[in-house]
Amino acid sequence: MIRPRSISGLREFLPAEQITFNRCVEIVRKHFELAGAVPLSTPAFELREVLLAKEGGDSVDRQVYGVHRLADGGEDTDFALRFDLTVPMARFVAQHAGELVFPFRRYQIQPVWRGERAQAGRYREFIQCDIDVVGDQTLSLITDAEIPAIIDGIFKEMNIGPFQIRMSNRKLLEGFLSGTGIPSESISDAMRVIDKIDKVGPDEIRKELAETYTLEDRQLDQIMAYVSLRGPAEEVIEKLLSLAPADSLNETYKGGVEELTTVARAAASLGLTPETFILDLSVARGLSYYTGTVYETTLVDHPSIGSICSGGRYENLAGLYTSRKLPGVGISIGLTRLVTRLMEAGLLPVEQATTAPVLVTVLDQGKLDRYLTVAGLLRKAGIGAEVATEQRKVGQQFKYADRKGFKLALVAGEDEFAAGTWQVKTLATGEQVVVEETRLVETLKGMLAP
Amino acid sequence: MIRPRSISGLREFLPAEQITFNRCVEIVRKHFELAGAVPLSTPAFELREVLLAKEGGDSVDRQVYGVHRLADGGEDTDFALRFDLTVPMARFVAQHAGELVFPFRRYQIQPVWRGERAQAGRYREFIQCDIDVVGDQTLSLITDAEIPAIIDGIFKEMNIGPFQIRMSNRKLLEGFLSGTGIPSESISDAMRVIDKIDKVGPDEIRKELAETYTLEDRQLDQIMAYVSLRGPAEEVIEKLLSLAPADSLNETYKGGVEELTTVARAAASLGLTPETFILDLSVARGLSYYTGTVYETTLVDHPSIGSICSGGRYENLAGLYTSRKLPGVGISIGLTRLVTRLMEAGLLPVEQATTAPVLVTVLDQGKLDRYLTVAGLLRKAGIGAEVATEQRKVGQQFKYADRKGFKLALVAGEDEFAAGTWQVKTLATGEQVVVEETRLVETLKGMLAP
Repeated sequence: MIRPRSISGLREFLPAEQITFNRCVEIVRKHFELAGAVPLSTPAFELREVLLAKEGGDSVDRQVYGVHRLADGGEDTDFALRFDLTVPMARFVAQHAGELVFPFRRYQIQPVWRGERAQAGRYREFIQCDIDVVGDQTLSLITDAEIPAIIDGIFKEMNIGPFQIRMSNRKLLEGFLSGTGIPSESISDAMRVIDKIDKVGPDEIRKELAETYTLEDRQLDQIMAYVSLRGPAEEVIEKLLSLAPADSLNETYKGGVEELTTVARAAASLGLTPETFILDLSVARGLSYYTGTVYETTLVDHPSIGSICSGGRYENLAGLYTSRKLPGVGISIGLTRLVTRLMEAGLLPVEQATTAPVLVTVLDQGKLDRYLTVAGLLRKAGIGAEVATEQRKVGQQFKYADRKGFKLALVAGEDEFAAGTWQVKTLATGEQVVVEETRLVETLKGMLAP
Repeated sequence: MIRPRSISGLREFLPAEQITFNRCVEIVRKHFELAGAVPLSTPAFELREVLLAKEGGDSVDRQVYGVHRLADGGEDTDFALRFDLTVPMARFVAQHAGELVFPFRRYQIQPVWRGERAQAGRYREFIQCDIDVVGDQTLSLITDAEIPAIIDGIFKEMNIGPFQIRMSNRKLLEGFLSGTGIPSESISDAMRVIDKIDKVGPDEIRKELAETYTLEDRQLDQIMAYVSLRGPAEEVIEKLLSLAPADSLNETYKGGVEELTTVARAAASLGLTPETFILDLSVARGLSYYTGTVYETTLVDHPSIGSICSGGRYENLAGLYTSRKLPGVGISIGLTRLVTRLMEAGLLPVEQATTAPVLVTVLDQGKLDRYLTVAGLLRKAGIGAEVATEQRKVGQQFKYADRKGFKLALVAGEDEFAAGTWQVKTLATGEQVVVEETRLVETLKGMLAP
C-alpha cells in the first residue's frame, strides 16, 4: 500500500475552504466580466523557447518546471509549465492578433507553477487572476482608471475589511529622482529600493539610498518627503508641482503629472473615492516592464499580508514575438495566497461543506420515491437538494445535516403524505413550518433568499 | 524575435469560443452543485509514486508527463502531471478521510494531461468534469440513480439536441456470459469486445466473439439478441428474466437484475423519462474497475461523436492508499473534446466576443466623465458595460460594437445631457428609445432580461 500524500508547497483545500475559495473566484470573474473582459485560458505548458524568450538565467527561469513524457526521459525537454499569465497572454495575442478585436480586454484565472523551495506562504502552484487591456498601437489612458475601479468592486464584494488601492505613475519618481543627483543609469535600481518601503520601512530605505548613492542629507530629506506623499488624489496632485524641487520639473516628471491627473479624474468618474483609492508616490513596482501608471493594493488592518494585487501600464506587451506595438495596462491578484491568508485571519467565512441548502430527510424508507421526487422538483426549480439516503435513523440524518451545514431540512411521514404537505425545518434555529407541497418551491425560495 | 506558437495537441480557444466553453462549464457546475456536490481542486502534479501506484507499463503510464525544475534536470523526477481526476480524488479521500463527511459528494472540473501523439480530436490537455459520490463502507444504490439525473439536467440545459443516457449493470452481462460457454477467465475480455458495439457495429462484434471463443451459432444468436436489447427501463426490465437462457440465471445475473431495477425506479422518481434515459445491455465499460451500474451517453443525431460521458459504480475507490473500504459511483464528461465537436457541428452557438452587453459610445470627448459615470453606475447595478474610449469616430465605435457583439449601445450628446436622458440602441435591430437617466438601470435590466 502506498501512503497517500501530496507534494509540499502545493496547496489544496478541504471542501468548506474550497467553497470559500470558489466564491472568491466567482466574485473576481463577475467584476472582470462586468467590465467587458473576455475569458482566456491558455495551455498549462508552452514551448520552452517561447516561454523563456525574455532572458535566461534570472531567478524566475531557475524556478520554471519542465515537462516531459515519462516514456521519453527528461533531458532537453521542449516544454515548460507557465510561471505567470503575462507571457502566455503575450504569446497568444501575438499569435492571434489578426483574429482579435482591439482593444483586447481579457481576463485569465488559472494556476501558475514555480519551483519555489517549500516554505510558509510560498506555493509551487497558485491561482492568478489577471485582467489586461491591450491596445493596437495605442491605448487610451482612461483604461488605466478602469483597472482600480474593477479591483475596488472585487474587494468590496469580498467584504474583507478596509483596503487601499494605491496608485502612482513611474514617470513621476523617475523624473523626480533624475533631478536629485542619482545617476540616470541607477534610477531603475533606486526605484526598486524605494518600492520596498512598505516592507522594510522608510528608515531602511533612507539608509540604503545613502549607502548606495552620493546624496546630501538635504537630497535624502527631499526624496523621503516625496515618497511619503500619499492621500486622496486631489490633495496629492495639488502638491505634485509644489513639492518637487525645480531640478525635477523635467519633461518626464511633467508627463507623469499629466497622466496621473487624467487617470485619477477618470477614476473618480467611475465611482472611486479616497476611502479605498489613494495616490501613493512610493509605489514604484520593481519591474522595469511598467512605464506609467502603477498600482498596489493593501489591507489597512493587515499590512503584514503585503500587496494583495498589483500591476500597471506597459508600453509594449509582445515585443519578443511581434513587431506590432501592443501597449497595455493590467493587474494581477495572487488568489491562492490571498484567500489562504484571509481565511487564516478569519476575514473570510469558512462554514459550509455543502453547496446545496436543502437536505431531504427520509422518515419512511418504503416511500423513497416521494423523497426523490421532491428532490428532483427542487433541483429543476434551481434549489440545491440532497436526499439523506445513507443514514437509517433520523437522528443521524440531522447530525449529517449539521456537520455539512445545510440550511433547511424537509421532513415528511405518513401524516404529511396524506395531507400533501412537508415540514420545513430551519436548521440554525430549529424553527419548523408546515408547507403544502404545491407551494413548496415558492416557500423555500423565499426562505433561502439572501 | 521568436515566432509565437503553441504546442500541437494543446487546444486553446478564441474569445467567442472560450465564452461558449465557459458557459458549458457553468452549466455543469450548476447541476453538480444542485445535487449537493462540493468542489475539489487538486494540484496539477502529484508524487509519481502516488499517481502511478496502480500499475506500471500500461498505455496510460506511457502517456504520463513528468515534471522537473529546469534547473535540476529531468532524470528521475519525482513529480508527474495528473492524467485523470479519479486517482487524485482517491489520494485526496484516503489522505483526508478523517476530515471529510461521508458520503463525500465531490465534483472536480480541471484539466488533465496525456502525452498523446497529436492528431485530430486527441488532446494533450483537456478539461474533465467529474462527479463522484463516495461512501464510507457502504453507499446506497439510490445514488446510482442520481448520476444520470444530474447528467440529464446538464445536457438539457446545454440544449445540444436529443441525447440518450444509456445505463446497464455489469453484473447482468457478466452473469449472462458465464451461462453461454465463455470461460469465466475470459468474460472480462468478452465484455470489452461487446463494449465496442456502437463503434464497430454488431456484425464485427459477432465475428470477433466467434473467432475468439468456442460458441455455437445458437449461442452467438443469444448473445447478439441480448446485447441488442435497449429501450425504456420498464420494457427492458420485463424482458430481463424471460430473455436470459436458464443457464444464465445465476446469482450474479439475478443480483444485476435487482440492482438495475432499484436504480431505474429511483431514476424515474427523480424525473428521468425514456426520452433521454434508457437501459442498454450492450453498455459494459471496458474498465474492469466498474462493478455494477454503468453509464454511457450519446447524441442521437451525432453518433460519430461517440460517448460524451460515461462512468459507473465501483466497489472500492482507494484500495491502493487505505484499508478503509470506500465504494462509489461517478461519471466524467470530457468537456474539451465535447464542446469542440459540438461547436464544429454548429450545435453550440459561438457568437459574442464580449461578456458585457452594453457599449457606452462617446459622442463628446470633452464629456468623458459623463460616459464613465454611467458605466460605473451600470456595473454597480450588475450590468456589464464598456466605454468606447479608443475610437474617435462614432461610426468606428458602432463597428466595434458589431464586431464584438454588444447587445445595446448607449448614445448621448449635448441634447441628451441637457435633458438628463440617454438613447438606448438595440444593435441587432437598430431600434432606438430615449430613456431618462434615473430610469436607465431599470430599463436596461428589462431589455436584457432573457
